[in-house]
Amino acid sequence: MEIPVGVSNRHVHLKKEDLNILFGENYQLTKYKDLTQPGEFASNEFVTLEGSKGVIEHVRVLGPVRNYTQVEVSKTDSYKLGVNPKVKMSGDLDDSEVITLIGPKGKITTNGCILAARHIHITEEELKSNNLKLNYSYKIKVKNEKETILGSVFLKTGNSYLELHLDTDDANAYLLKSGDKVELIIDEE
Amino acid sequence: MEIPVGVSNRHVHLKKEDLNILFGENYQLTKYKDLTQPGEFASNEFVTLEGSKGVIEHVRVLGPVRNYTQVEVSKTDSYKLGVNPKVKMSGDLDDSEVITLIGPKGKITTNGCILAARHIHITEEELKSNNLKLNYSYKIKVKNEKETILGSVFLKTGNSYLELHLDTDDANAYLLKSGDKVELIIDEE
Repeated sequence: MEIPVGVSNRHVHLKKEDLNILFGENYQLTKYKDLTQPGEFASNEFVTLEGSKGVIEHVRVLGPVRNYTQVEVSKTDSYKLGVNPKVKMSGDLDDSEVITLIGPKGKITTNGCILAARHIHITEEELKSNNLKLNYSYKIKVKNEKETILGSVFLKTGNSYLELHLDTDDANAYLLKSGDKVELIIDEE
Repeated sequence: MEIPVGVSNRHVHLKKEDLNILFGENYQLTKYKDLTQPGEFASNEFVTLEGSKGVIEHVRVLGPVRNYTQVEVSKTDSYKLGVNPKVKMSGDLDDSEVITLIGPKGKITTNGCILAARHIHITEEELKSNNLKLNYSYKIKVKNEKETILGSVFLKTGNSYLELHLDTDDANAYLLKSGDKVELIIDEE
């Protein structure tokens, strides 16, 4: 089964309270452009990330606001920042890393920093018609000069599109760009 | 079979003529420290890399001088620089990318820029005792949260040590550091 790739650069999701601290009371995120993920958008707002060893400026905030603040970075970013985030699924913030976010109006230090686990957004229909399972670790095959089989890929439903989300370390290691196609390996059981 | 990992950060090998242009006539590289690879050393000399989109400063020159100039970068670096190097084995510079190197005394624009292909340095003895082959595409298994099987891994002999060389994109994608162990998959034929 062929799956298009979506590469996620480092980004930030904010809860309302943190948006207020970073950008000012009652601030509203403004849309830069829609993302493939329905309802989600890249905003025109940026923050600076700060860890024990360094900062990364100009990190985009994604909208809309969520009920938790989450900072998704790559392992490469984590070395530059001096933070040690774990590989986690989005929203699973137990044990996530602490990081500092600096906005134009304020600064917060919060947990919520993760390396986003590889995952595939898939529709309920495609899940059923291909006999696929949730909570199951799938493999993805990349066929190019950096031939690789990625394990620990989980499926997520609840959205109306099909896309494998990789961070920039994964994408760059396999020479993949958004829109490239990879193969979901479906075991013959 | 367990193989220790060696992570290669971006670096430069220089031929004598290019060393002279970048650092001055009859310049000799000075040793910062020995590398695992016998006879090879990290020098105290650095250059700036320049492509169409940007520069990367403080890129270490490895010694001793070679009979070709070669610039090994990661895909991540290539986006920053604005160059498009291919995945190549060290020394195979047909079709390699053009890049500019800037030293304290001069500047050159040369081919020789590559993404170094994954490869394993292995001794002749280990090659024989494990019935392994040269010119054969092996697979490496990484067992951690970023569970992955890397394909297109070739063996190189001629040195007295055992190490899988990965660039920083591969290493960071699989959460590997120098000295970590991975598994060489030996097919049962």
